[in-house]
Amino acid sequence: MQKPASVAILLTGNELMTGDIVDSNSVMMAEKLAEIGLKIRVKSTVGDELALLCAEMRRLSACSDVLLVNGGLGPTADDLTAQALAEVMGVSLVEHEGALEHLLAWCAKRNYPLNEANRKQAMLPQGVELVPNGNGTAVGFRAPLGDCTVICTPGVPPELALMLDKEILPTLRHLASDTYEAKRIRLRLFGIGESSLQQKIKDNCPDWPEALELGFRASLPLLELKLQVEKREHHALLPQWEARMRELFGEHVVTDDQQSMGEVLVAQLLERGLKVTCAESCTGGLIASLLTQVSGASAVFEAGYVTYSNDIKQRLLGVSERSLQQHGAVSEAVVKEMLSGALHHSGADLGVAVSGVAGPSGGSEEKPVGTVWLAWGSATLMRAREFYFPMSRKRFQLMVATLALDLLRRHMLGSTEEPWYFAERQRQKG
Amino acid sequence: MQKPASVAILLTGNELMTGDIVDSNSVMMAEKLAEIGLKIRVKSTVGDELALLCAEMRRLSACSDVLLVNGGLGPTADDLTAQALAEVMGVSLVEHEGALEHLLAWCAKRNYPLNEANRKQAMLPQGVELVPNGNGTAVGFRAPLGDCTVICTPGVPPELALMLDKEILPTLRHLASDTYEAKRIRLRLFGIGESSLQQKIKDNCPDWPEALELGFRASLPLLELKLQVEKREHHALLPQWEARMRELFGEHVVTDDQQSMGEVLVAQLLERGLKVTCAESCTGGLIASLLTQVSGASAVFEAGYVTYSNDIKQRLLGVSERSLQQHGAVSEAVVKEMLSGALHHSGADLGVAVSGVAGPSGGSEEKPVGTVWLAWGSATLMRAREFYFPMSRKRFQLMVATLALDLLRRHMLGSTEEPWYFAERQRQKG
Repeated sequence: MQKPASVAILLTGNELMTGDIVDSNSVMMAEKLAEIGLKIRVKSTVGDELALLCAEMRRLSACSDVLLVNGGLGPTADDLTAQALAEVMGVSLVEHEGALEHLLAWCAKRNYPLNEANRKQAMLPQGVELVPNGNGTAVGFRAPLGDCTVICTPGVPPELALMLDKEILPTLRHLASDTYEAKRIRLRLFGIGESSLQQKIKDNCPDWPEALELGFRASLPLLELKLQVEKREHHALLPQWEARMRELFGEHVVTDDQQSMGEVLVAQLLERGLKVTCAESCTGGLIASLLTQVSGASAVFEAGYVTYSNDIKQRLLGVSERSLQQHGAVSEAVVKEMLSGALHHSGADLGVAVSGVAGPSGGSEEKPVGTVWLAWGSATLMRAREFYFPMSRKRFQLMVATLALDLLRRHMLGSTEEPWYFAERQRQKG
Repeated sequence: MQKPASVAILLTGNELMTGDIVDSNSVMMAEKLAEIGLKIRVKSTVGDELALLCAEMRRLSACSDVLLVNGGLGPTADDLTAQALAEVMGVSLVEHEGALEHLLAWCAKRNYPLNEANRKQAMLPQGVELVPNGNGTAVGFRAPLGDCTVICTPGVPPELALMLDKEILPTLRHLASDTYEAKRIRLRLFGIGESSLQQKIKDNCPDWPEALELGFRASLPLLELKLQVEKREHHALLPQWEARMRELFGEHVVTDDQQSMGEVLVAQLLERGLKVTCAESCTGGLIASLLTQVSGASAVFEAGYVTYSNDIKQRLLGVSERSLQQHGAVSEAVVKEMLSGALHHSGADLGVAVSGVAGPSGGSEEKPVGTVWLAWGSATLMRAREFYFPMSRKRFQLMVATLALDLLRRHMLGSTEEPWYFAERQRQKG
């Protein structure tokens, strides 16, 4: 086959029509399909309306090699996918033995009784093939419809992800063409803005090849740079241009994987056999949380201190009354004392301390909402700096917590480069 | 008109098919249309492919009163919306005087010359009516196609938003019927699963009115229950059935707003003038973070302790060596001592302590991954219980942190009801 197979997607759910949720499933599907060289040609979205669902299954299966249906597999009355496919196939809904087994096993493991509603999830169109769900009660199923293969998948994102990876993509790989096989690499950066990044590429890469597609995506607070080629003959461009990008952006490149900043940091600490701690005021536990989300964090992280009030900063970390009164809680002196206290009490090798004005209230003329002081490093090499991020409370907290981890990452790299966020301080200082 | 008009949406752009961007425009459209009583019935998304775009315009206009086309109005060669509509209407593309004026004025204001690429944006299907764009170069346009009104809009979100508000919605308002005006209320619940919830409604509400639509949405880890009516005459059902639902689900109802569990808890604490603390092992700072995300949290939260290692549990919170050795870190004795220590050191009135096995490693036969002990309450009224949540590390942490806040919420309500998650402990105990 020269051209790759034609894939259609049918998303179902009233919540997708009313704007109650943003469709992220089709993004996931597109990305995973691209990895095996398949592209989505049409995408249709309908509410929980049986006639419409049937009509779209008929229409899309008639013009596609593969139709992926997503959603409508739940236990409730508005979940209509199995019923629609049965109607279109001209068969009855029957209790599928494998599906029932799956439900019973699922319930047994959790010691639930299998209730009526859940039992409905075993009623599938006669003759379909089961697609196992490793993450939930809703099994998927597939059946031919004319020349098209229809595959019905659950709407819950982690269930869909696992099912695509384990069950569906391996069976679709043969549909991809020999010529076309999209391939991409992604770099995740922190410490440089999108427009600076774009300008730097423009200025430094006049020889950019036409076959190499450049994309950006905010993966807040990281920035993702994507390099992609469509055809197999261009695959060799990727490693070559990845190296160019790494050279150009140096330590701004955090990872070439889907890793989070926390994962990168935990790996770095593990590699060096170091332990880390944190003393948080305005981020309120988020730095500790980003670290402990990572499996294996217990080997590098023992203690975190959330010291929201001045009193607790003194009692828990030994911050001095004098520094608090002379400089205020959001100051170089206080974050340094917070970090010293945290390092001392926890016995960690490295750490970070933050104190700032997350807002929306609590700002002053001298220290407006968005002002934050960070101290980072070790007892013997400690640095501190002031930053300014005027944004919503939640984004401020995420930005500052990520920045804290990035400062530790660069500290361990012995970094000399200036990330863009250092400019923020100069802005405020005039 | 009795029934409200049927609205279809056609989104175009390769970036929507490849997963490079998430479609947020249709969410905006759905929300704005709902405000004037209109609903999207079908939504189709295609890449920049002329034949497909024409086919979809034909199909969707044939079954709708209004077709909103979004995207493909830019200056580049892959922007095909005007050309597709011209083809479907059977007319030529001509330079539209009003559109050209708009472009010239736009450029003059910014002192740009009007380049070739931008001039293309004035080429519109003959006979269309201009829809002004107050925010960008791409003008919108509208034309009848059979019985349908086709309206083409720009893909840049702020341009679309302004155009909808100023130009499009006012002209569609008359299509909304007097009879139909959707109205909804939402309740957010925690402590009851979706299928139990549905079963309970089924068992207790044989008089459920047909005009009242029931919907569920996972707003992880909360569950959202939606009641909706379509017609004005049924609006009165909403307060009546909201009361029934509140009676039926009691303290499982966390809020009737878009509030998070953290916001609900902070409000409760503020109201009662109480302060809270937390001692976290397996949630690693997430409980503190959920609380401090809330603006105003500093009035109710002073200190949080992330005690990941046994050593730190002893040194920071005074957990006894004996309890750790006899019962292990994941035990009733240890979480109670963690909570006592946290309450004592922070001076808070209430608190919660958690210790568990987040996984994926670290489980044992006796304490498998997913096992967690929580202690909650005050120094004088402290309870503790074991739970079991076998799920991914991230979901486990979010579930346990939310549960911790929920236990405190119910504690303050003097709750006597048993939330479903209490069954989890029985499961494990056999």
